[in-house]
Amino acid sequence: MRPDDARLVYQGRLLGVTVERWGRYEREIVEHPGAVAIVAVDADGWVTLVRQMREATRGELLELPAGTREEGEEPLATAKRELREECGLAGGEWSELATFWTTPGFCRERMTVFAAEGVEPSGAPDPEEDEQLEPVRIRLEELEQRLGEIEDAKTLVGLLLYLRTRSPHTA
Amino acid sequence: MRPDDARLVYQGRLLGVTVERWGRYEREIVEHPGAVAIVAVDADGWVTLVRQMREATRGELLELPAGTREEGEEPLATAKRELREECGLAGGEWSELATFWTTPGFCRERMTVFAAEGVEPSGAPDPEEDEQLEPVRIRLEELEQRLGEIEDAKTLVGLLLYLRTRSPHTA
Repeated sequence: MRPDDARLVYQGRLLGVTVERWGRYEREIVEHPGAVAIVAVDADGWVTLVRQMREATRGELLELPAGTREEGEEPLATAKRELREECGLAGGEWSELATFWTTPGFCRERMTVFAAEGVEPSGAPDPEEDEQLEPVRIRLEELEQRLGEIEDAKTLVGLLLYLRTRSPHTA
Repeated sequence: MRPDDARLVYQGRLLGVTVERWGRYEREIVEHPGAVAIVAVDADGWVTLVRQMREATRGELLELPAGTREEGEEPLATAKRELREECGLAGGEWSELATFWTTPGFCRERMTVFAAEGVEPSGAPDPEEDEQLEPVRIRLEELEQRLGEIEDAKTLVGLLLYLRTRSPHTA
């Protein structure tokens, strides 16, 4: 499936916008390199999230550690890099929880969420210069009752799927 | 929290892109009016999803019925309108499952997902002229094993949260 025509109408630093013609219709599509997020759990049952300034929302959100794929980088490599940079965590057993489109009506961002179990400290976090974020540790058994604080799609998907893998009824 | 400066760098039909300056940093942000999605269940235990061409993904996705808010329209009104247009369903008991940002790193789209229980046929679906979609009915008890087919964030969030409300362990 290919459009009849496509033209780039905006190119910024991270984002671009393409207008595609499909038969009689045009679609505006935000170009994005794809992203990853991680449900990181240590051997003592702590999950590490990040509280992060999100300018688009005019406030802070509590989210999974996450990041954008760099050119030619595989999702798993991005995820391990971001977990180290944002949270100072490494190691553990990694598995994929899901891969999905964040908002497929108008955006090409594809997101892979991993679980990383048994992660360990790898040194001090080293976030990007323009990232304001703070790691927040939550006990696994408290995750359920804190889901109401989560206002980010990838974080909801990742935590809900991870909690299912731990339920005896769905494992 | 307000940016020091904001300038619109692209304005299309549905989308705009704003570049905001926050102190020493700039952020590219996709402007979007917000959207809704619906977990619609009838009295016999059928859930209605839609199979829909998504040009950004180069294929079809299985999703919750959903749509974009029109100017001045409340989320619940958008949801009832979209469920009627896309699936030919109306009525039932409505409740909010969650409200979240679809991809808060670079986009102002806020999504509300509703549950609508006990919906009934309201006439033939009447989708937008440029929408190619087909309603797909799934038994509630089959939803669990079909989650692996879902590649759309709002649909994963909606179905996972709805399934939790039906579990005796979390209700």
